[in-house]
Amino acid sequence: MRTSYVWIPLLIAAIAVPLGFYYVDWSKSGEGAGLYSRDWSPEAIFAYWNPDEFYKSVESVVGEFSGEQCVECHQAVTPGVVNDWRKSGHSKPANNQAVVYCSDCHGNNHEDLHLPTPDVCGTCHNVQHDQFTDEKRYGFPSHSLALERAMDAKHFADKPKAEVTACVQCHSVASKCDSCHTRHVFSAAEARRPEACITCHSGPPHPDDETYFHSKHGQLYLAEGENWDWSKPLSKGNYPAPTCAYCHMDNGKHQVADKAIWKFGLKQVNPLTSGNQIRRKQWVELCGDCHEKDWSAEQLRQLDAERKLSWSKLYEAEAVLKDLRSEKLMQPSAKQRPPYPGDSPDAFLQYQRIGFFEGQASAFYNVSPIERDYFEMWYFDNLKSYKGAAHGDASFVDEGQAAMDASLETIKRNAERLRSAGEGKLDKDTEGNIWLEGEYTEYNRDHN
Amino acid sequence: MRTSYVWIPLLIAAIAVPLGFYYVDWSKSGEGAGLYSRDWSPEAIFAYWNPDEFYKSVESVVGEFSGEQCVECHQAVTPGVVNDWRKSGHSKPANNQAVVYCSDCHGNNHEDLHLPTPDVCGTCHNVQHDQFTDEKRYGFPSHSLALERAMDAKHFADKPKAEVTACVQCHSVASKCDSCHTRHVFSAAEARRPEACITCHSGPPHPDDETYFHSKHGQLYLAEGENWDWSKPLSKGNYPAPTCAYCHMDNGKHQVADKAIWKFGLKQVNPLTSGNQIRRKQWVELCGDCHEKDWSAEQLRQLDAERKLSWSKLYEAEAVLKDLRSEKLMQPSAKQRPPYPGDSPDAFLQYQRIGFFEGQASAFYNVSPIERDYFEMWYFDNLKSYKGAAHGDASFVDEGQAAMDASLETIKRNAERLRSAGEGKLDKDTEGNIWLEGEYTEYNRDHN
Amino acid sequence: MRTSYVWIPLLIAAIAVPLGFYYVDWSKSGEGAGLYSRDWSPEAIFAYWNPDEFYKSVESVVGEFSGEQCVECHQAVTPGVVNDWRKSGHSKPANNQAVVYCSDCHGNNHEDLHLPTPDVCGTCHNVQHDQFTDEKRYGFPSHSLALERAMDAKHFADKPKAEVTACVQCHSVASKCDSCHTRHVFSAAEARRPEACITCHSGPPHPDDETYFHSKHGQLYLAEGENWDWSKPLSKGNYPAPTCAYCHMDNGKHQVADKAIWKFGLKQVNPLTSGNQIRRKQWVELCGDCHEKDWSAEQLRQLDAERKLSWSKLYEAEAVLKDLRSEKLMQPSAKQRPPYPGDSPDAFLQYQRIGFFEGQASAFYNVSPIERDYFEMWYFDNLKSYKGAAHGDASFVDEGQAAMDASLETIKRNAERLRSAGEGKLDKDTEGNIWLEGEYTEYNRDHN
Repeated sequence: MRTSYVWIPLLIAAIAVPLGFYYVDWSKSGEGAGLYSRDWSPEAIFAYWNPDEFYKSVESVVGEFSGEQCVECHQAVTPGVVNDWRKSGHSKPANNQAVVYCSDCHGNNHEDLHLPTPDVCGTCHNVQHDQFTDEKRYGFPSHSLALERAMDAKHFADKPKAEVTACVQCHSVASKCDSCHTRHVFSAAEARRPEACITCHSGPPHPDDETYFHSKHGQLYLAEGENWDWSKPLSKGNYPAPTCAYCHMDNGKHQVADKAIWKFGLKQVNPLTSGNQIRRKQWVELCGDCHEKDWSAEQLRQLDAERKLSWSKLYEAEAVLKDLRSEKLMQPSAKQRPPYPGDSPDAFLQYQRIGFFEGQASAFYNVSPIERDYFEMWYFDNLKSYKGAAHGDASFVDEGQAAMDASLETIKRNAERLRSAGEGKLDKDTEGNIWLEGEYTEYNRDHN
Repeated sequence: MRTSYVWIPLLIAAIAVPLGFYYVDWSKSGEGAGLYSRDWSPEAIFAYWNPDEFYKSVESVVGEFSGEQCVECHQAVTPGVVNDWRKSGHSKPANNQAVVYCSDCHGNNHEDLHLPTPDVCGTCHNVQHDQFTDEKRYGFPSHSLALERAMDAKHFADKPKAEVTACVQCHSVASKCDSCHTRHVFSAAEARRPEACITCHSGPPHPDDETYFHSKHGQLYLAEGENWDWSKPLSKGNYPAPTCAYCHMDNGKHQVADKAIWKFGLKQVNPLTSGNQIRRKQWVELCGDCHEKDWSAEQLRQLDAERKLSWSKLYEAEAVLKDLRSEKLMQPSAKQRPPYPGDSPDAFLQYQRIGFFEGQASAFYNVSPIERDYFEMWYFDNLKSYKGAAHGDASFVDEGQAAMDASLETIKRNAERLRSAGEGKLDKDTEGNIWLEGEYTEYNRDHN
Repeated sequence: MRTSYVWIPLLIAAIAVPLGFYYVDWSKSGEGAGLYSRDWSPEAIFAYWNPDEFYKSVESVVGEFSGEQCVECHQAVTPGVVNDWRKSGHSKPANNQAVVYCSDCHGNNHEDLHLPTPDVCGTCHNVQHDQFTDEKRYGFPSHSLALERAMDAKHFADKPKAEVTACVQCHSVASKCDSCHTRHVFSAAEARRPEACITCHSGPPHPDDETYFHSKHGQLYLAEGENWDWSKPLSKGNYPAPTCAYCHMDNGKHQVADKAIWKFGLKQVNPLTSGNQIRRKQWVELCGDCHEKDWSAEQLRQLDAERKLSWSKLYEAEAVLKDLRSEKLMQPSAKQRPPYPGDSPDAFLQYQRIGFFEGQASAFYNVSPIERDYFEMWYFDNLKSYKGAAHGDASFVDEGQAAMDASLETIKRNAERLRSAGEGKLDKDTEGNIWLEGEYTEYNRDHN
């Protein structure tokens, strides 16, 4: 009797597997891209930042053109572009190589132009292209995963379009070599200077701009950099002080991820794993272009100490929040907070996430004040101190630490307040409606 | 019977009209300037920023001097000034024009020197002068109205002198061509560079500095600008990347107002009026010096989207405040807040103003915390995001939006708190005295 | 009878005086340095910032070497260092002077190298050395007392090591001429440029960076400084606009303290003492290199006015806190707050210190929110406005003043809240434990 029921799971599988395939296909078939492609549609401008997904050629001019013809016409239409190209190695290549014309990268058919992605550049610059894509092996953060991972984030589909557009502007680095080698000069010399990185690497979550330029290295660059010979490669003895690329892309290697120990600074890492010991030696070796080994090793140890201190403060704050969660004192609670779009488990089995590991990636909005205080402590102050220590800007370390002290004290004090009956009750009675309406829940989801 | 009373209104008019004239004369006859001239007196330093109103020649040296004599003596007294003049076109004019000496602008009589205002410069540079004064047609903000409108503001008479002095330093642009063409070189090349604008255009309400220099345009300028030929006019093909003046004063036009769509960003504007459609075309045309039309149009549409989003958040916050006002829960209330000086209607018919349209121009001080949160959301965060979107600094958009989200949440939450009996009662009973005394009400009005 | 007891005080003295000597010796005999040397131990990296106390030569290479041998070997080992030295005056001295080799400053014995302090540099550069050490006469703040006073501060022993390390990085200026004349070029031209100062003089408590670069002076430097002749001394007529050193170290005088009127800005000073009148004349004289006397005097008077206004706001806030203290409403109270290490009187006779004069030097941490608001008003906003006024950055004046207004209002309002029974009681019952545990009290004191 029993064996005759074998057909039941088989039947279920026979239905479920095709259904699964169908569902995955369906979920990716939206107007947007990535995991939540059905929950958002792209703005026209996304075409320039993610051309593989969204670019459609402008059909302004009909016909096929040779490279010389492109140049001739665009000299009048967009002279800035052609002036840049004339300065570039593409227009006057070394070693009897062929001139690289507009059409070599954009195509000849003006009704079917394309925007060059790293794959197009890689047909000639294959070493750099391979190094660049090799970053994917090390996971996020990485330049080559920047766009994909941004679009796969739940809050990408949830935040107002005008905000994620700003995100995509920098995350487009994955699909645009000209983020660093500005079109249409595509200069190696330009990308050796810190400004090439700074357009994106500034502001609270990654104050590389602020900390580099406040360091002795950055001040030397500011005072004297205009007289350095930027045509030289980024190697030992060529520069009086380092730039971003000198240290992070030494000898021009287009791979930033393999040497990173502390990475973005959002998670605590063990800086003494065997892998990180090797990276540490590589750093000391690199600093050794100018500094003695002992000095360099001590600088790295100071960074370890800064990280340890910051995480002791962050964990203390996190523990306060976890206690509040178990006491059900956080407002809004998971049920008062709208689930992410397309986030079915969250819609039914709601869970209050605290801290990065649990997934509080969108903690900019729709969270209680005490969670936002923690978020800002973690995402702004922690990273301020981290980058200050990493790049030699002492004042950012002290500012970041002072800000973390202030946040930690505020979090503890507000936790006591929430525990007092009066306030807790007030919140529960009156504030539930803040979260299930408002610009994020109503406006955005209608329009994204 | 009735017609015999015709003489009554005639008699009243015969008395009131001369009285009105007398009052207007009297109100303008104070030591200060503008509408509230009787409520403040100038600091000595105002002479340098508003010379038409306040400059009196230093009577240190007696006599009349030729231009050559000025130079000879001042070469020893203030060599920096004379060195600058020697570098200027004034000392070595082109095309057989006459040398422009100190005395041509300051006068010959050392007991009756004057500081040159735009009218003095305009005697030779009449095209630029006419463009500059033409800005007045477009209303404030404008460079040529900057001083007049500052001095006519109620809070100008109300704030401590040391603070309005700081205001006047930049607003003096209306009376000083050397705000941009620094004395005594008066260089056109200097004013083409962003630094000419940045002395004033930086900081929270107009982070043009921060956003330009974080943009790709600004980073190119920082990395390579020292090698560009600044003697060239600001026109198509002459510069590898734009500066402030390249876009806002293209081809050297001394008129910044006629092309502005969103202006200061303090009011919502309809970006699609017929006038603004024309301006939009002008922008796309200008961006077209380097970029294709479609790309440029999309960038402007992104700015529209950013503005719409910001205003949706600002209006939501404003609505919360208006509700509180009708529930009489704002502390201080209109009656607890001192009226502006010279502001008779406010003194008798007090009204709680919320937001820019209602006149909350001085919301820096003497307002309740919830109003200040709104003020900062509107004046700092909103403008941060706006200028980020306008100038291509994506991180400022996200920082501004995150700050607006935080403010909006705080405002909503605090509104709920004010509604709870306990807090509202506490405020009413104990805090009234904060506002009618303190440094703004007592100290300033005694001393301004 | 009575006279026979004379031996008692004599005996006590005979015991107490040696005991006192013993105690002082003992207290300085710790692993650290300064008054609290027994309460902390140095990090290895302190060796580079305070070499007289902590540097021990790296014993990597054995032997004695001539200067030529140093250069030969280090050209391969650390080419950056040798390249720098080749650019320096040390490698190609003027006037038939001898070459200054590595060994002249670091010693010949590779097992007993030393790091050169100002005393080493002073053997040749004795004028500059004497000016530099002469600063000590004027008390702190001064470059030559920077390290000593930092290490003698109670909070130096109390704060986490990773934070005081960041402090020492800049305060090491007392022991390192290469803070400004970067090793191993040791260029006078470099130190004339603002970047030499900015590595340390930036950020909230001394925004010299921000305010100088936002001033007209700074903008001129940024726009044109790359074309100025930096080999010229800092004297009248040599530079089109001043840098930090032009004004504060005019004619290359290595003494910054003797001309300072308002100093750090942390205390109110009387700007009109006879001494300060002399300094004022010196400033007007110096500004006179480019500006007329009347203009310069007015600028200084504006700074006086700004200072007076700021202090009127600070004193008002301080008075609120003093009232709260006498009403015993401050949380944590002196008894709830851990005393400084080694601070015996504080441990027994606890006293709530408010403001700088009373010793709130460590008010970054372990204070109540209302005290921190005051601290930030005083240490950040006050100094923002001060340096804005001193360096000609008008927007920093207005930002600083607006921030002080906001803080003052918050402080007053929160004082009222603390007076209401509910909150005060809540604090007393529940919050005592915040302060006597946590990272500062537990973690640090175990590890410092």
